[in-house]
Amino acid sequence: MKTIKIGLIGTGYIGRCHAIAYAQAPTLFPLKGKLQLEYLAEINQELAEQKAQEFGFARATDDWRKLVADPDIDVVDICTPNFLHKEIALEAIKHGKHVYSEKPLALTAADAKEMVEAVKKAGVKTLVGFNYIKNPTTQLARQIIQNGEIGEVVHFYGTHNEDYLASPNTPVDWHCYKAKAGLGTLGDLAAHIVSMAHYLVGEEIVSVVGDMQTVITERPNPHNLAEKVKVENEDQATAIVRFANGVMGTIESSRIACGRKMGLTYVVTGTKGSLSYTQERMAELKLYLHDDDKSRQGFKTILVGPEHPDYAAFCVSAGHGIGFNDQKAVEIRDLINGIAADDRMFPDFEEGYKISRVLEAIAKSAEEKRWVEVEEV
Amino acid sequence: MKTIKIGLIGTGYIGRCHAIAYAQAPTLFPLKGKLQLEYLAEINQELAEQKAQEFGFARATDDWRKLVADPDIDVVDICTPNFLHKEIALEAIKHGKHVYSEKPLALTAADAKEMVEAVKKAGVKTLVGFNYIKNPTTQLARQIIQNGEIGEVVHFYGTHNEDYLASPNTPVDWHCYKAKAGLGTLGDLAAHIVSMAHYLVGEEIVSVVGDMQTVITERPNPHNLAEKVKVENEDQATAIVRFANGVMGTIESSRIACGRKMGLTYVVTGTKGSLSYTQERMAELKLYLHDDDKSRQGFKTILVGPEHPDYAAFCVSAGHGIGFNDQKAVEIRDLINGIAADDRMFPDFEEGYKISRVLEAIAKSAEEKRWVEVEEV
Amino acid sequence: MKTIKIGLIGTGYIGRCHAIAYAQAPTLFPLKGKLQLEYLAEINQELAEQKAQEFGFARATDDWRKLVADPDIDVVDICTPNFLHKEIALEAIKHGKHVYSEKPLALTAADAKEMVEAVKKAGVKTLVGFNYIKNPTTQLARQIIQNGEIGEVVHFYGTHNEDYLASPNTPVDWHCYKAKAGLGTLGDLAAHIVSMAHYLVGEEIVSVVGDMQTVITERPNPHNLAEKVKVENEDQATAIVRFANGVMGTIESSRIACGRKMGLTYVVTGTKGSLSYTQERMAELKLYLHDDDKSRQGFKTILVGPEHPDYAAFCVSAGHGIGFNDQKAVEIRDLINGIAADDRMFPDFEEGYKISRVLEAIAKSAEEKRWVEVEEV
Amino acid sequence: MKTIKIGLIGTGYIGRCHAIAYAQAPTLFPLKGKLQLEYLAEINQELAEQKAQEFGFARATDDWRKLVADPDIDVVDICTPNFLHKEIALEAIKHGKHVYSEKPLALTAADAKEMVEAVKKAGVKTLVGFNYIKNPTTQLARQIIQNGEIGEVVHFYGTHNEDYLASPNTPVDWHCYKAKAGLGTLGDLAAHIVSMAHYLVGEEIVSVVGDMQTVITERPNPHNLAEKVKVENEDQATAIVRFANGVMGTIESSRIACGRKMGLTYVVTGTKGSLSYTQERMAELKLYLHDDDKSRQGFKTILVGPEHPDYAAFCVSAGHGIGFNDQKAVEIRDLINGIAADDRMFPDFEEGYKISRVLEAIAKSAEEKRWVEVEEV
Repeated sequence: MKTIKIGLIGTGYIGRCHAIAYAQAPTLFPLKGKLQLEYLAEINQELAEQKAQEFGFARATDDWRKLVADPDIDVVDICTPNFLHKEIALEAIKHGKHVYSEKPLALTAADAKEMVEAVKKAGVKTLVGFNYIKNPTTQLARQIIQNGEIGEVVHFYGTHNEDYLASPNTPVDWHCYKAKAGLGTLGDLAAHIVSMAHYLVGEEIVSVVGDMQTVITERPNPHNLAEKVKVENEDQATAIVRFANGVMGTIESSRIACGRKMGLTYVVTGTKGSLSYTQERMAELKLYLHDDDKSRQGFKTILVGPEHPDYAAFCVSAGHGIGFNDQKAVEIRDLINGIAADDRMFPDFEEGYKISRVLEAIAKSAEEKRWVEVEEV
Repeated sequence: MKTIKIGLIGTGYIGRCHAIAYAQAPTLFPLKGKLQLEYLAEINQELAEQKAQEFGFARATDDWRKLVADPDIDVVDICTPNFLHKEIALEAIKHGKHVYSEKPLALTAADAKEMVEAVKKAGVKTLVGFNYIKNPTTQLARQIIQNGEIGEVVHFYGTHNEDYLASPNTPVDWHCYKAKAGLGTLGDLAAHIVSMAHYLVGEEIVSVVGDMQTVITERPNPHNLAEKVKVENEDQATAIVRFANGVMGTIESSRIACGRKMGLTYVVTGTKGSLSYTQERMAELKLYLHDDDKSRQGFKTILVGPEHPDYAAFCVSAGHGIGFNDQKAVEIRDLINGIAADDRMFPDFEEGYKISRVLEAIAKSAEEKRWVEVEEV
Repeated sequence: MKTIKIGLIGTGYIGRCHAIAYAQAPTLFPLKGKLQLEYLAEINQELAEQKAQEFGFARATDDWRKLVADPDIDVVDICTPNFLHKEIALEAIKHGKHVYSEKPLALTAADAKEMVEAVKKAGVKTLVGFNYIKNPTTQLARQIIQNGEIGEVVHFYGTHNEDYLASPNTPVDWHCYKAKAGLGTLGDLAAHIVSMAHYLVGEEIVSVVGDMQTVITERPNPHNLAEKVKVENEDQATAIVRFANGVMGTIESSRIACGRKMGLTYVVTGTKGSLSYTQERMAELKLYLHDDDKSRQGFKTILVGPEHPDYAAFCVSAGHGIGFNDQKAVEIRDLINGIAADDRMFPDFEEGYKISRVLEAIAKSAEEKRWVEVEEV
Repeated sequence: MKTIKIGLIGTGYIGRCHAIAYAQAPTLFPLKGKLQLEYLAEINQELAEQKAQEFGFARATDDWRKLVADPDIDVVDICTPNFLHKEIALEAIKHGKHVYSEKPLALTAADAKEMVEAVKKAGVKTLVGFNYIKNPTTQLARQIIQNGEIGEVVHFYGTHNEDYLASPNTPVDWHCYKAKAGLGTLGDLAAHIVSMAHYLVGEEIVSVVGDMQTVITERPNPHNLAEKVKVENEDQATAIVRFANGVMGTIESSRIACGRKMGLTYVVTGTKGSLSYTQERMAELKLYLHDDDKSRQGFKTILVGPEHPDYAAFCVSAGHGIGFNDQKAVEIRDLINGIAADDRMFPDFEEGYKISRVLEAIAKSAEEKRWVEVEEV
């Protein structure tokens, strides 16, 4: 069995998630390749070594360029701050590495496009960390839609709302700067719900009209709370969208949505039924079928179980629950299997680029107060 | 105590709701006027008399013109099909009657405007049947917002989705014709959620960008199911809106939203908290306060009770529940008290006209694929 | 059509509920008799007259004995404090009146038995106000069970929990005295869930083992808060029960159950499915069918609608909601129709007596720390 | 740092759960000892080796006696069928090993007692796999109770209901035989809710009265479906209990509870508030505080987050969810830390024995139709 050697760059919140998933994936799944945690890069050698030990990586470095150039690395896993994704990915691709990058792929669609082109030229494989579509419950949703159980999709409503910047007293951080984060809630959160929209509807978003707003226009300087610093990107955004097949949809996102801790939700309406979901109850899906006897109609709460995709890897009984990191473990399974078996991985950089375009089209639409075709971006 | 004599025109679904509310209102509330069910009009004398007896009205007629001209009538209550609202209201106003009309006020904003002008000239009082804002639970929501408990409102999300036309096999009916209904789901359902948006945010919607779609473009002819008839208005519509104070909002409406039986919902987000509600659970309101200790944050489910507006009229204990007709009884209370005490009633024709304009602006925006200022309409 | 003349005794909380229901019932239902609100008794003439006017009764008296003896009264409706039920009912029966009594029928099973015997001798009709079984949603539950949709019933779990005495600072009131209330939470609340158990399972409870506790043993004297007064009956009670057909069940009741405002709930489990309900969401029923495809199993939330029993009287559309008073209106319909058509009404005094026996058996079991057969009582 | 060498016996459903948890625990938690997966035993060498490779264990054997005697093993982890727990544990203890056993500790309380005595004599450490009390959400519940936030506990209601044997067509399996499983739903499921009751109330159950029933008395022989085989233990059981401090409680359990996939639920009622939880939504806890302003009372849905016990190990943001295996990872953390730091682990064999006694007391009470003191067993 082929060994797949991982080089991880960045060990903050999301890097640690990757590490947890790497740790459990081989026990959870019969992987097609042997996963080897080979190399880890952080901003200084001490931190790199500490994290390498914590996460079980063999070697450590304070120089990501050494890691991406290392001949003993198969996959470069990018968990750095967003603004570094592009530079690292391009360098890794240059060295012929497969790249597994966290979302958003890049700060702009133009950057993402450049990355996609480099990938095509190099012929490497890519995967982007839109982990929510790996949740067994959401895989079930897609299966139900593809089976035609709710008929033809006629509407998609999706949100990704959180409240991590709801308080005006929360100091400014990297999310709030264009140079560090690019878009605001669109780039950070809406990326996930656009990814979800594509995944569930099975069609791309092709035109949008959006609105957005920076509600809290300035925030305390974290180094001097008395001083106020300008927030450079949007706190909340909404878009009406059309998919390639003409289906209508609505996308909403906010990072100041008081009360929403993990407010990724969707309602998919079809001609014969509908589905409703919230990530805050990630192990349940509500299904309504209009052809049920009129006196017995209603949303049925399905608890995800071993009859559904990928759940059996976690537990043999329904309703026992899956957690955030379990999604990431499925993603790691897809990574290892994709590379080992030389299959296409999804969502790849191409898909990451498409999502970036949609987000940028929404921002453009909001600025220009008009409908925008995604292909304009 | 002044006697208020009611003349009811139309006894279908909504006319019957009025009758139920008239029956219970005097027992529920200490009314400022004595309610008298005086006259009832239907399309033929036999039906009129039968309904008069059923609903407890003293006299019956097959000619609504006789009713609106009758000197012994104080209030003309219009529960006819929508396309007749305008003609009857204008005639009633001409005779100096107060008018209580079901929504939508008229088929077009222009018609509604004409009605408002007639009212101003005649100096009569008006009330429009946007009953959902009379629900004690929703009154509580407004109270919480006005108290500033959730801070400044930063976002409004509202839907009114139902599935009464979800099946393509459901024959065409009056809802589907422009001449009978005017707009489709916008006029029938979205009217309620626009009314709710104004009521809760406390500001008017001033600009909109919308999209809409007739998903099921033709339906069986009810008189010959094999034949297909064209549907003339929209099945689903969405609008991004801005309120006068700059607050963002989203309005969604569908009459083909599989699974939604009474899908009037709202989420009002403020700088310090948020509220969430669905009419399908009309006796509960979810309230989140961001200033709660971080480890004890969460949406609290408040069951409406006697501490809240108007509930005590129905029951002395919280959580015992209120129903659809109870909202209408509150509306009747407002009608009788408004007329008896010579107070302004709300929502009146002026408000009904404002709602019509918003709906028409959404439709215009969808047709012209651009942002529309409500005052353009 | 026969006229049914009502004499109402008592106009507190529950008397007012009856009045609201009397007001709306004739508009809601095509009654078999003509309802006439004839006579009303209260503790003094002034209050009696005020309430008569408020509730629409023709005559008023401060002497209930005059009312029950009045030849122009068909039905005596008893809404007095519980300890008066027996005396008034016996006197009414003696005068050949039909009796509509609020629950509990009497303070003891022995008293209830005496009342049943008087009824049998006099041949009058009776109805007891266990209104929760009149809710269309609960009627639907019974229908589903009787249809065999959930197979054979194998377990019943029911609660009636509230928190009206949860605070130790709440002064003592009539509920806390044996002479005024008889049992504590058993008589006040558990009576409803025993009624529900009989109604849904379709079998009587025949043996019980129970436990009960007065948690807050003394409370402030309402007239002198510094002084403490002894609480004479139980705050919470639980019983394991067996129905006549051997089915197991559990009954729980508390008047100090913090957070429960209307905590009447049931879960009925069958060999092929189950039902779950809470009165706090009285318009929805959750139904699970085990024969559903394993990957599509789950509880379906059915919103009560016009396809279900009695709902169409209130509204033509599902999900629009019913309230507490609507149940009482169904009860009034049963009263008028039962008397007009000379049909048996349910639940009658016989059923009220059976419920009293079960409650008393539970109390006896708790005191004697042993299983008790209901027929021992 | 001390190395803790694990010997795992049994690799079925629950053994695999342990393996998943072993895999991720070192990445999740800063463990006090170094976890080493040393030895694995299965019923034949081939399976043992295959599982050792899958789960990352160094050595494999088909003889558990070799494993428990191996000088290089610190902890014997017992994941075999229940009837083998005792024999293996006693043998492991004899060899001075710490023992980590799945629940139930043994088939009878007498056996469990023997095990406890052996442990005391040998001075080894023990842990029993009552993993549900390791859930961060449930740890939060305990914290809230211990803080006095809901006042003094006055009632505990708990269930562990599932439906894995709901269908009469499901063939008989080891759960149904006394010699293999001991008690039925009491041993398999109720064990968890008794563990939970002790953990949350902070007091032991001292007296019980119970009822139980084998509803499906015979089932198909799995080797010959036409033949029926007798079921030897109970399908459903209920007990009214009293804790040492006099608090009342109710315990319910069923393995035929249609619709319950992971129906471990609890409601803990105190003098000042209450908590409500279901394992099917294992990342949320409902909290009600009676001292809230009367018009703002209600159950608050708290999504477990990094402010709560142990959650931060899994995710930095609230509401992102935890799964079944995450509980087991916390348990493994407790195991490694307990042994490395020589601290008491909980729940240990002593607690496992106490739980067995309660269960056996319930069974005895049901058979003898009387209240039973737990110390009678």
